[in-house]
Amino acid sequence: MKDRYLDFVNSPFGASVARSIGLPQPEVLRRHAQGRAEFDGIAAIGAGPSPTLFEPLLALLTGLGMTSVAHESALGWLPVAARHGAMSGRFEPRSPGAAPNDQVQALIFDATGITDSTQLHALYGFFHDAIRSVAKSGRIVVLGRQPQSCTSPRAWTAQRALEGMTRSLGKEARGGISSNLIQVEPGADIDGALRFLLSPRSAYVSGQVVHIDTTPVTQPADWNQPLAGKRALVTGAARGIGAAIAQVLADRGAHVIGLDVPQAQDALDQTMLALEDAWPSQGAHTAIVADIAAPEAPETIAAALLAMGGIDIVVHNAGITRDKTIAKMTEAAWDSVIDVNLSAQERIDDLLLDQNVLHAGGRIIAVSSISGIAGNLGQTNYATSKAGVIGRVQSMVEALRARGITINAVAPGFIETQMTARIPLGLREAGRRMNSMSQGGQPVDVAETIAWLASPACAGITGNVVRVCGQSLIGA
Amino acid sequence: MKDRYLDFVNSPFGASVARSIGLPQPEVLRRHAQGRAEFDGIAAIGAGPSPTLFEPLLALLTGLGMTSVAHESALGWLPVAARHGAMSGRFEPRSPGAAPNDQVQALIFDATGITDSTQLHALYGFFHDAIRSVAKSGRIVVLGRQPQSCTSPRAWTAQRALEGMTRSLGKEARGGISSNLIQVEPGADIDGALRFLLSPRSAYVSGQVVHIDTTPVTQPADWNQPLAGKRALVTGAARGIGAAIAQVLADRGAHVIGLDVPQAQDALDQTMLALEDAWPSQGAHTAIVADIAAPEAPETIAAALLAMGGIDIVVHNAGITRDKTIAKMTEAAWDSVIDVNLSAQERIDDLLLDQNVLHAGGRIIAVSSISGIAGNLGQTNYATSKAGVIGRVQSMVEALRARGITINAVAPGFIETQMTARIPLGLREAGRRMNSMSQGGQPVDVAETIAWLASPACAGITGNVVRVCGQSLIGA
Repeated sequence: MKDRYLDFVNSPFGASVARSIGLPQPEVLRRHAQGRAEFDGIAAIGAGPSPTLFEPLLALLTGLGMTSVAHESALGWLPVAARHGAMSGRFEPRSPGAAPNDQVQALIFDATGITDSTQLHALYGFFHDAIRSVAKSGRIVVLGRQPQSCTSPRAWTAQRALEGMTRSLGKEARGGISSNLIQVEPGADIDGALRFLLSPRSAYVSGQVVHIDTTPVTQPADWNQPLAGKRALVTGAARGIGAAIAQVLADRGAHVIGLDVPQAQDALDQTMLALEDAWPSQGAHTAIVADIAAPEAPETIAAALLAMGGIDIVVHNAGITRDKTIAKMTEAAWDSVIDVNLSAQERIDDLLLDQNVLHAGGRIIAVSSISGIAGNLGQTNYATSKAGVIGRVQSMVEALRARGITINAVAPGFIETQMTARIPLGLREAGRRMNSMSQGGQPVDVAETIAWLASPACAGITGNVVRVCGQSLIGA
Repeated sequence: MKDRYLDFVNSPFGASVARSIGLPQPEVLRRHAQGRAEFDGIAAIGAGPSPTLFEPLLALLTGLGMTSVAHESALGWLPVAARHGAMSGRFEPRSPGAAPNDQVQALIFDATGITDSTQLHALYGFFHDAIRSVAKSGRIVVLGRQPQSCTSPRAWTAQRALEGMTRSLGKEARGGISSNLIQVEPGADIDGALRFLLSPRSAYVSGQVVHIDTTPVTQPADWNQPLAGKRALVTGAARGIGAAIAQVLADRGAHVIGLDVPQAQDALDQTMLALEDAWPSQGAHTAIVADIAAPEAPETIAAALLAMGGIDIVVHNAGITRDKTIAKMTEAAWDSVIDVNLSAQERIDDLLLDQNVLHAGGRIIAVSSISGIAGNLGQTNYATSKAGVIGRVQSMVEALRARGITINAVAPGFIETQMTARIPLGLREAGRRMNSMSQGGQPVDVAETIAWLASPACAGITGNVVRVCGQSLIGA
């Protein structure tokens, strides 16, 4: 779970060794920490022709306490800022050797008005001038349209092209800088997605495309406690990523119902008690001991949750691996992985939805995996189950929309856990370094992404698969 | 362009060195060669519950001269075979140490009837028993349904899960064995897709998902000359992948109109003359010298093609690279790459379609790239253009459907060309080995995939992006 190489290259001696012999130099990622400002610094704004999001973007940045500077591609930003009484100025490209205080925290490009490939030139102008000015662990966000919702083939083409740009920028930026694309339907609320992708909470999310629809959004009264008053079921909550999810949801104000198997009861109890210790004002959380694969599990779980008045959030995190190549895999290894990771989720959700245990306006978030996207040697069972999880999410979007319920998946890449700590060193090092952050992610990175998708601000985000992989090289 | 390592590990001495120190052991891929049977050997058949494709599958295999054996999951195959008077038998799992003549050329699994995750078990049974029996350069094909066309969420989920299975099998199989998934709409004609994916012509296509719709198909009178009587425009035809495309299209019977820039005129002329030498019965092919990026190019090209009576196939292969990180990239490098690789295609196709230069029932095939999918360091311009090409393909599907025109993209991975020969050795070796074939592809692999999509048998294949990458590890 400890990345000794990361520590080494971030020591003065290690850094000079790494530089001189050309080793990867992963940055210690800035993550959110209690008592440290979540947002600060300057955002540089660029735009293509006819940008549409300056007003909500300016309102958001002002609300976050960030200032802005406008690149020459976005000079229309300045009158908007003036009208709102916000400080702004022109972006000046950083001269070589300039002091770090010339740096900006974020580059934000409004590409929503781009309707032809020739207009992509504006992206070149902005990122050519500005990319060297981004601080370490800074953020690149491109705002565009969903290609298939464009009315002309030329607009669809140009909007689809943005993916190639955003992903390439993520591979060039280095220094813990992430690069993501948000596809905004006209009139959609951008705050939920943009806050997250600008925040240190999204430290390990890069190279992703997030789509926001026009579902009306109720912004949380307190952005630090967006889940206040919500009840959240987390399966597999005893340890690892599940425990991190429980912690982050509790930190955001949720009452957590942690579920795990009987064998993990002690660890589960400790995890749940630790939540109470850390956030005493919220009182005790709830532990449910059950094997989700048992035939009676859906009934048992639904009954327990109904007795509390139902829930608002379901996080399907419980999962197992039984790795072997298909030729050597036992039938039991196949069946148990498919059942725990996929079929059990189906049975449980069917009952939670039939009996309205999950409230209208609720959230379902399922944990998929990079293996479900790319396939993996020795994991036919696991990859099949995790590809199925993506299918579940996509298949349920429309039926759940009528009830205001969103359903999304997160797909972790290489995350530092007890599971990955058992991988042989050579493979582990390859897994850690083969991404744009040159390091593995932490369980909290997955948990933050889930907590974000669970928030009221994400009412317009459904059917998305968000990888938490540091923009892993590995994909399909 | 020469992979010396591939030659080395396939020598007796090299093979023993590679085995003893654990080096990758790429297989010399079986490719189609004049005078060698394209199809032979045995296909082992597996199936989930309620398979729907036994009849067309049996007819196809019989037509190809292949025999079949039925796995216990597909015992319903035997009466179908008997009804058609086809030889068939039961599949017997290969015992350890059995002679190579126990091997099968292909594993084909009919998963179209799978409607629930619990039924995925049938895939385990078949591939567990059969994967060791596949000969080198053999084929794995799973036949399923398009998830989003399934009526129940459970069926959608299970069908989506097949992707994880197929991709994992591709990573486990080794020995030049490919693994692909075909999503078949009920009633769609499977011959075009299945023939290609069973053939040595698809040597470097693995880990792909191909979707077939129900558009009626006219099967070619001669499967070796499916493009007889067709005229095909190939841009960038002078050298490399473009020249290979011209050769393969000519081999399939097409009259090729090769286009390239004035600077490449000599090479273009030689390429076109070589076609005439190789296939003298087709007479002379046509060279057009033009810079596709020139403002007058669409008119020039359209006029030349109209004078011949129009065309049936357009292959947008011409492309350039001008690699630099965005901070160091010149404006000219950005503009020229976007223009040549993307905007010029748009201008040309608009005119070819407006003036009906491309006949009804025609084919458009555009060359994208792995960089357009995953993004690439130093290629913001190229990756943006190639992501845009994917957008073009997807955006034009519905408008072209009314005219019976299909549009698809191929996305090459690491292909051995003069361009990749200039990559420094270390990077080149990484690029070559980081895929399920442990080697780069050949230009002919891209060309064969394009010729396949151009054929009359592919009337039901449109809007697809087919990677020719040996199932590269790199993806998005």
